[in-house]
Amino acid sequence: MGDLSAGVVVIGNEILSGKVVDTNSPFLAAELRPLGVTLRRIATIPDELPLIREEVRSQHASFDLVFTSGGVGPTHDDVTIEGVALALGRRVVVHSDIADKLRAFYGDRINPARLKMAEVPEGAELITDTSINFPTIKVENIYILPGIPEIFRAKLEGLKPRFNADPYCLKIVYTRVGEGTIAEHLNDTLRQFPELLLGSYPKINHPEYMVKITLESKDAGYVGRAFVHLLTVLPEGSVVRTEE
Amino acid sequence: MGDLSAGVVVIGNEILSGKVVDTNSPFLAAELRPLGVTLRRIATIPDELPLIREEVRSQHASFDLVFTSGGVGPTHDDVTIEGVALALGRRVVVHSDIADKLRAFYGDRINPARLKMAEVPEGAELITDTSINFPTIKVENIYILPGIPEIFRAKLEGLKPRFNADPYCLKIVYTRVGEGTIAEHLNDTLRQFPELLLGSYPKINHPEYMVKITLESKDAGYVGRAFVHLLTVLPEGSVVRTEE
Repeated sequence: MGDLSAGVVVIGNEILSGKVVDTNSPFLAAELRPLGVTLRRIATIPDELPLIREEVRSQHASFDLVFTSGGVGPTHDDVTIEGVALALGRRVVVHSDIADKLRAFYGDRINPARLKMAEVPEGAELITDTSINFPTIKVENIYILPGIPEIFRAKLEGLKPRFNADPYCLKIVYTRVGEGTIAEHLNDTLRQFPELLLGSYPKINHPEYMVKITLESKDAGYVGRAFVHLLTVLPEGSVVRTEE
Repeated sequence: MGDLSAGVVVIGNEILSGKVVDTNSPFLAAELRPLGVTLRRIATIPDELPLIREEVRSQHASFDLVFTSGGVGPTHDDVTIEGVALALGRRVVVHSDIADKLRAFYGDRINPARLKMAEVPEGAELITDTSINFPTIKVENIYILPGIPEIFRAKLEGLKPRFNADPYCLKIVYTRVGEGTIAEHLNDTLRQFPELLLGSYPKINHPEYMVKITLESKDAGYVGRAFVHLLTVLPEGSVVRTEE
């Protein structure tokens, strides 16, 4: 238990060129939050070694957990393994367990492209406790996940038990008045509760509310007191409803 | 005409915490591509000044165009203007044109929070040629856009005529065989056409194809020759269909 920070490196020209919408990082964000893991950065970058090396190196140094998404198949544009290895100053080696598995699976259809999928940064750990037959490659604090959403999700599901941190406690207030009206009350609440994570999200043309206010902390008592304070200072009649 | 590179800084704790899915950066990616603008980076970061300053500074130095999404309202977590100003070493000033507009709109309901929306990095340009009544703030190569998707889109629509670069020419090949089978032929094509942008995207359980191969270049003749070459080297019967 405790605090865990995380970052994700999404590797894929197809996302930057608008051909594919990245659904892996939103999925990761939504999965990590209830575990209490704080996602601090999503970086989507091209399939280019120097860029992968720099981003992975930076996130590796900054966060407790780093996830990569994409670039792990058998083709020329799959350079994530090499990029992660470069970031850590490690060599790329063929992992004999994976190579054996690939040879057993493909038989005489094995070829250099397929064997490329046995390459890992030297010293990598193989994690096999997921529903997917192919192991997840972990090296230091970096989890290397594939871009295909179905496999990304299945692998992450298997990894989740490793990442339990203290959960966040969330309370929500919906108002029928706009941000310009409530801003001073939010500021007042933050002065009283400087550690509060306070979000304010206006919605256009919503039939029920104008602003969704989120209050969060890993300390349930703290967020409870901030919630009561905010409800006390907001103008009478401005609250549509709350969620706790 | 020519080549234009771009980056986008998505600012919002709500995205990193999984409360909201960012639809602005996928929209931007899909809009920029047909214009020939090459999106090189999407960075999603928290509402924190030092992080905004660093990311904006980095993208400002690296790309022709930088877009920011989010963090421009009247509340405490709206710190994008200040972050951009810090990145450029500029002061934050009140723009009198915007302040006048806000005062005219709000009358005696004007307050400090609402007036905050008149703040801009010193020397910013106001762009008013969109369907949105509130101007878009531009400073150097940075376009500051709001997080609310409806407004982000409307503003971007108005800005698009500024960004015409040479368009990409795209051809697509769908194969009924997997990446492990075609990888060597993709590599062969890249050896012959080293400047080709070649993407390979496997799909799980698709009824029609296993891999979508994309060939792109700003030189239509070049991509045409690469396309013919790839079709020549792929195994007989492996192509489901093509798109040009």
